[in-house]
Amino acid sequence: MTELQQSLEETGQRARVAAYALAATSTTVKNRALRAMATALRAREAVILAANRADVDRAESNGLAPAMIDRLRLDAERIAGMAAGIENVASLTDPTGGTISEWTRPNGIRISKVRVPIGVVGIIYESRPNVTSDAAVLCTKTGNATILRGGSESIESNIAIAAALREGGTGEGLHEDAIQLIPTTDREAVRLMAGLDKYIDVIVPRGGHSLIEAVVTAARMPVIKHYNGVCMAYIDAAADFEMALKIAINAKTQRPGVCNAIETILVHRDIAETFYPRLAAEFEKAGVEIRADDTVRRILGDRAVAARPEDWTTEFLDLRIAAGVVDSLAAAIAHINTHSSHHSDCIVTADTEAAERFLNEVDSATVYWNASTRFTDGAEFGFGAEIGISTDKLHARGPMALEELTTYKYKIRGTGQVRG
Amino acid sequence: MTELQQSLEETGQRARVAAYALAATSTTVKNRALRAMATALRAREAVILAANRADVDRAESNGLAPAMIDRLRLDAERIAGMAAGIENVASLTDPTGGTISEWTRPNGIRISKVRVPIGVVGIIYESRPNVTSDAAVLCTKTGNATILRGGSESIESNIAIAAALREGGTGEGLHEDAIQLIPTTDREAVRLMAGLDKYIDVIVPRGGHSLIEAVVTAARMPVIKHYNGVCMAYIDAAADFEMALKIAINAKTQRPGVCNAIETILVHRDIAETFYPRLAAEFEKAGVEIRADDTVRRILGDRAVAARPEDWTTEFLDLRIAAGVVDSLAAAIAHINTHSSHHSDCIVTADTEAAERFLNEVDSATVYWNASTRFTDGAEFGFGAEIGISTDKLHARGPMALEELTTYKYKIRGTGQVRG
Repeated sequence: MTELQQSLEETGQRARVAAYALAATSTTVKNRALRAMATALRAREAVILAANRADVDRAESNGLAPAMIDRLRLDAERIAGMAAGIENVASLTDPTGGTISEWTRPNGIRISKVRVPIGVVGIIYESRPNVTSDAAVLCTKTGNATILRGGSESIESNIAIAAALREGGTGEGLHEDAIQLIPTTDREAVRLMAGLDKYIDVIVPRGGHSLIEAVVTAARMPVIKHYNGVCMAYIDAAADFEMALKIAINAKTQRPGVCNAIETILVHRDIAETFYPRLAAEFEKAGVEIRADDTVRRILGDRAVAARPEDWTTEFLDLRIAAGVVDSLAAAIAHINTHSSHHSDCIVTADTEAAERFLNEVDSATVYWNASTRFTDGAEFGFGAEIGISTDKLHARGPMALEELTTYKYKIRGTGQVRG
Repeated sequence: MTELQQSLEETGQRARVAAYALAATSTTVKNRALRAMATALRAREAVILAANRADVDRAESNGLAPAMIDRLRLDAERIAGMAAGIENVASLTDPTGGTISEWTRPNGIRISKVRVPIGVVGIIYESRPNVTSDAAVLCTKTGNATILRGGSESIESNIAIAAALREGGTGEGLHEDAIQLIPTTDREAVRLMAGLDKYIDVIVPRGGHSLIEAVVTAARMPVIKHYNGVCMAYIDAAADFEMALKIAINAKTQRPGVCNAIETILVHRDIAETFYPRLAAEFEKAGVEIRADDTVRRILGDRAVAARPEDWTTEFLDLRIAAGVVDSLAAAIAHINTHSSHHSDCIVTADTEAAERFLNEVDSATVYWNASTRFTDGAEFGFGAEIGISTDKLHARGPMALEELTTYKYKIRGTGQVRG
């Protein structure tokens, strides 16, 4: 066993012990610990900023792209944001301990399905150091032990943030191994973590496609994936044009760099000739490039460029959109089920029957009728916080918040019943 | 791409198409299709028995163990049992389409969390041909397309059963690819199936440890594991002896070859001297061999043999039990959390506080107070049927029935809302 393997094995063992302690920790103590973590983050601001400065300096001398350095960089405002985020999580309802359902069998045994922590949650993430705090405190709130493995670029910042969280938490009686950070940048650690299914109950990778792929390929435990959002809007023949324009513009341009922005728009053939010129005018004002199929190009002329095949499945994350015409609602549904990433898709129509068919038949985590896809978000759903937006179907689908960091068990109370 | 790869790819594509058709199939049609499957199974009894005869003959000439051949063998009664099982599933409530929760946000969007089919379920199983029918019909009931991959020993039987199910289902308008069986015994098919995460949403392996390991290692999609049951009973100092004896005997001997039978018994030190001799007398009558720790051996003398280290984590599946003494409730909980398989564990006590602590702190799918672990079963829980007992924590934990073959999606209905 290598030194790294040995060290990860011990991290796993400590996490398992911590998980049992956390599962038995009251909501009051957990909330007190969370508030103390926020206080500790603020108190250690100078130390955290110094550590972050070292990360940023290294990144700059390594020639990291400016956008990446911006993600990496902390300042007083960002630390205050992390601390406020923790206090928000402390104020949310703790889902653990609740009874999901309860019934008595004819033989008299009483079965209670109750919500409990998952146990040990592994978080593997990339450059943003705030994930260290954001993810760890959601796990703490739900009674899970956390093993964090951040990106190498933010290693010093992550270590400093994790130390603050630990100091704050243990001061209020939280188990000292409730939040553990793997303090190495060795890439082998990701593969080794993925093999520790004996200790880690689930891994949530937070990052780009190649990180997720690496985790999925190696993982023996469940992985909850937050893949990209290739979201689509379908403008039905019975759409209110003003509403359709407003939703399309909002879903594409309000914040194009996020996963719930749309990347494709499909318009019913019956309205394409009248709708697309108006949409193109709005898109032009907003600086959106239209990558169109043949029909849309015929309508828009040089206001659109020809879509390449890959444009129909690309998460542009910027001001570009694939634009097509479909012959029917069924064709729109088929296109979306084939090409979208099953994240958030929308129909705009005044036809209730068409809308309900779309909501039923589009196989995505969140399906919209007459509203922007931009609402796929834990806060917008009213969850108070989110660890991400799952593109998986099992356990967590769509915005993943506190409840999705729990599982259940069955408690059975009898009076001596045996099976006949 | 090999011929097998090509064939599996096509199977996956067809399953995905079938899944969308099934998701849009009404409960009435699904139930009618299920009843027609039962009728078709009965009508094809002779064909199925002939196919099974070929499997059994081959198994006998290959020298397969008699217990394996018994699992493989079908007769009129077993086919009638499968058909009756299908009719039972048809009579159960369809969980899909139901609303789990629903709320309106301050901006007026209405969010509905609704229960939907998972999509495509892969079932990889070993020798029992009845799994072909039992698993496929639970998936059909819940609107999922199924890809079945049975053991090579039962290939002819599986093909004949699947053909009958398909004939019955399509006659009532079910999509012809709702239930597909991979008609090859090539072991490579398991590994290839495990890579088809593009088409298969979840795999449920039904079989022994090496089958599950092979699937877990290769799978890119979620796997719901049904590992073994190393179940334990703890007899507390405050236990009613008569109740404790009755539960221990039932949990060990009523059907020792199943996963919810106990493999370890732990007794509180304060009652060990008085309880163990009575338990040993009962176990002796039932033919149970006791593998004891030093304290128990001192109490029981030659009525027990020395436990080997591995006995504390072994699923004996026969009339053997590991028997120990613990100093406290905490020690019992720690032993169970460390050595059990987190399947079903039980405390016998008249002390409510001790019981509640046990129910809270034992990290198992099903935890019992004063009842036999033998109740961990879909039918005993009142679920009407089960696809197995999950030892996983995510998505499905414990008895896995119709509801666990579904997921959810969010339907959002607006009136033109956009994000500000």
